[in-house]
Amino acid sequence: MTETTRYSGGGFVHIKNPHLEAMDEDVLYHLDLGTRTHDLPAMFGDVKFVCVGGSPNRMKAFARFMHKELGLEGDGEDLADICAGTDRYAMYRVGPVLSISHGMGIPSVSIMLHELIKLLHHAKCRDVTIIRIGTSGGLGVQAGSVVITDRAVDACFQPRFEQVVLGDVVVRGTDLDGGLVEELLACSEAIPDFPTLVGHTMCTYDFYEGQGRLDGALCSFSNEKKLEYLKRAHDAGVRNIEMESTAFAALCGLCGLRDARRKSWDTEITTYPDVLQISSKLKNSQSMAWCNRCNRLCHRLIILNLGLSWRC
Amino acid sequence: MTETTRYSGGGFVHIKNPHLEAMDEDVLYHLDLGTRTHDLPAMFGDVKFVCVGGSPNRMKAFARFMHKELGLEGDGEDLADICAGTDRYAMYRVGPVLSISHGMGIPSVSIMLHELIKLLHHAKCRDVTIIRIGTSGGLGVQAGSVVITDRAVDACFQPRFEQVVLGDVVVRGTDLDGGLVEELLACSEAIPDFPTLVGHTMCTYDFYEGQGRLDGALCSFSNEKKLEYLKRAHDAGVRNIEMESTAFAALCGLCGLRDARRKSWDTEITTYPDVLQISSKLKNSQSMAWCNRCNRLCHRLIILNLGLSWRC
Repeated sequence: MTETTRYSGGGFVHIKNPHLEAMDEDVLYHLDLGTRTHDLPAMFGDVKFVCVGGSPNRMKAFARFMHKELGLEGDGEDLADICAGTDRYAMYRVGPVLSISHGMGIPSVSIMLHELIKLLHHAKCRDVTIIRIGTSGGLGVQAGSVVITDRAVDACFQPRFEQVVLGDVVVRGTDLDGGLVEELLACSEAIPDFPTLVGHTMCTYDFYEGQGRLDGALCSFSNEKKLEYLKRAHDAGVRNIEMESTAFAALCGLCGLRDARRKSWDTEITTYPDVLQISSKLKNSQSMAWCNRCNRLCHRLIILNLGLSWRC
Repeated sequence: MTETTRYSGGGFVHIKNPHLEAMDEDVLYHLDLGTRTHDLPAMFGDVKFVCVGGSPNRMKAFARFMHKELGLEGDGEDLADICAGTDRYAMYRVGPVLSISHGMGIPSVSIMLHELIKLLHHAKCRDVTIIRIGTSGGLGVQAGSVVITDRAVDACFQPRFEQVVLGDVVVRGTDLDGGLVEELLACSEAIPDFPTLVGHTMCTYDFYEGQGRLDGALCSFSNEKKLEYLKRAHDAGVRNIEMESTAFAALCGLCGLRDARRKSWDTEITTYPDVLQISSKLKNSQSMAWCNRCNRLCHRLIILNLGLSWRC
């Protein structure tokens, strides 16, 4: 079954579930929030940007960075985790920006997105932009590059997200917004010393064998076979590999986070070493330093859209 | 391609990767450990039990519980997170027991298991028992029941773990140890007021649509279709649903964590409300209270295998 219908119009975040209207209460279990226990419109109604990424620490660092850059009161060091009642995800709010972690892999990001989308819907948010920032393995690109995703593809290089629903396979599209790609690229060009490119992002279910790594506990293929597969991926336009993009694109697209006016987008910005060229793994400190490039790009996009002046 | 070959013998944890021997260094990136930076045999060589679960807080609570029950020095309140240099996973050691979190979903548990298996291999551990404890949705069982998994199955009720490796689908078996099932059941019978049963565990990639829930951001099916699917699952022997068991069974089985003498097992113990009967979600406090049943069962198994006296 192929599912392509998308909601649009009004700038609101839409849910695609007729059962929710009949529910007395919606418990957003993994966020430790709910419609009875929290005044979601008051807490989140004026959120305009949602930035998501795998690591709780990085999303906290991003929130602190945005707090400082937006010139909000206080030093941002004591930002409260809105999801502190659970350790599944971390969430920070700084002005119109929500910063949320999603863990690693499609199942983990999918749970968070289901509950985030319902949160934005219940809160009656309008014209929300959602951006994923994170690390990934580069493919034939300079280590530390930022890749702006123009298409999310699966491990067979197809722009699709397959999911089993009640035992049947449902196929969903993973289109991303071409306008956003250009806008992000323009943002990057204004920042000095900022290697950035546009390309397809391949999403896998496995970090080791699934991404052609030779250093997992299991590996049944040769270096030659690995390079052959990665070359095929590169020839298909893939420039980086990670573990969440197809689900992110599919879920956000189906729920009106792309189509709700031009200000609502989803995309990914990723940075990491080239898996074709670099076999050793990054130190966390280097990874964090490169991630700051994503943070700066997001910040510039947000500032420009908020109409505030840009500080390089 | 179907892969069924399994390592066995010697009581050691085996890796199934010929490339690792040629590597000067193995960086266990997501655990913030490595063969050059850490003396893994000294740190972990005498580990005999590994207990894994999704939530960092719960695995810390389990470590504290075991610290107390094993009568180790100190109050266990200041246990250090061995993976404190990263926020991907948390790891605690108490005597011969390692307690590790793995996040939510197959990709997340898979990364942890690849690196854990290599850790146990590098540390020259012998006769290691690995047990997954966690929450799950019950299927036609009393809320709060502990389900001991005798077979991990996918969303089509098949005992298999499918994975894309270099663009090809590899199918792996998900057999679990029948001897362990009986031993765990015997342990549970000796604990009063402890609802426990044996059944198949279904593993899905999605928490909402994938498990037939009506309260996600997306839902395209009716309550009748949901019940029909869950009834089919129940008829196939499924008694609970979660998101990691097939990968857990496949990876541990392939790496000698089942076949290395009788003391090495993998299984799951899960507890959660019946998704057929209970539509609202648990409060975290109730979930944590029910999780203590898993902790007590694990503890009893460990104590009996260590030859220590059991405190109910």
